[in-house]
Amino acid sequence: MSEIKRLKSGPRMSQAVIYNGTVWLAGQVGSPGKSITEQTATILSQVDKLLSEAGSSKSKILQTTIWLSSMDDFDEMNLVWDNWVDQENTPARACGEARLATPDYNVEIMVIAAV
Amino acid sequence: MSEIKRLKSGPRMSQAVIYNGTVWLAGQVGSPGKSITEQTATILSQVDKLLSEAGSSKSKILQTTIWLSSMDDFDEMNLVWDNWVDQENTPARACGEARLATPDYNVEIMVIAAV
Amino acid sequence: MSEIKRLKSGPRMSQAVIYNGTVWLAGQVGSPGKSITEQTATILSQVDKLLSEAGSSKSKILQTTIWLSSMDDFDEMNLVWDNWVDQENTPARACGEARLATPDYNVEIMVIAAV
Repeated sequence: MSEIKRLKSGPRMSQAVIYNGTVWLAGQVGSPGKSITEQTATILSQVDKLLSEAGSSKSKILQTTIWLSSMDDFDEMNLVWDNWVDQENTPARACGEARLATPDYNVEIMVIAAV
Repeated sequence: MSEIKRLKSGPRMSQAVIYNGTVWLAGQVGSPGKSITEQTATILSQVDKLLSEAGSSKSKILQTTIWLSSMDDFDEMNLVWDNWVDQENTPARACGEARLATPDYNVEIMVIAAV
Repeated sequence: MSEIKRLKSGPRMSQAVIYNGTVWLAGQVGSPGKSITEQTATILSQVDKLLSEAGSSKSKILQTTIWLSSMDDFDEMNLVWDNWVDQENTPARACGEARLATPDYNVEIMVIAAV
């Protein structure tokens, strides 16, 4: 059986869990109270770092789920996403509206990638 | 390492990503403004097509997540689901309420299946 | 190819699906109308049982998604979570607000684990 490896592990959750050639990232959030553009950019930069530590990269993302606290921010989030994603290797994606842990968080992104 | 294969790939997302014997589908939506019954039927027919292209089928679905823009539509969606799903081979399922990309979309379905 | 094994399978969904060294659980809910503490405790005890039947355990959870019908219940749910989770082996986690199948359900938890 494949081993389970956890990165940035705390007593409540780990930021990344690697198993069987796949990595699951915890839902990433940005700096509370910042604009959607800034929160999304921070999140995607955290995703880059976590994937890199896991031996993966944004070109290997399999699936991503995006939660926005308001769908009014869909276009602004997408602008940052479209500039960041590897357009030759895009993941399956879903985006829905959900209020997040505090009202200061307006976007949260979950990522599953190949290692 | 297993190769990553992407189907109906665009610059923002792919409709299906295959890796390591598993396929992740993008969140599927139906025709905007149609009834829940029609949107759900369209979605499930798209799921059939994508799974078939990926070398899978509805009998091999592992997990599905369903978002409804209103839980009032739970029973109407389930009627279509229950008639479609392979009742001998049902997936793990979760269903929650989330507003979707535009108010004209009332249901979105995410699928993970074995290939 | 790995075989697909389904546990507590009904005509609409299965409570657990095992494939390729991984198990996906259906979204678990507690007893309708009970407190968040009680619903969360019931859910996590069901997760324990399902994982055990699948040949897994809470120490092998890879990813978990938590839906709360109101984020006001975040701290109360976390208290139960923090006491239950294997703090040496925590999963990737995401928590968002979503109304659930009926207003009597206030928390739903989805789990993916290694087998």
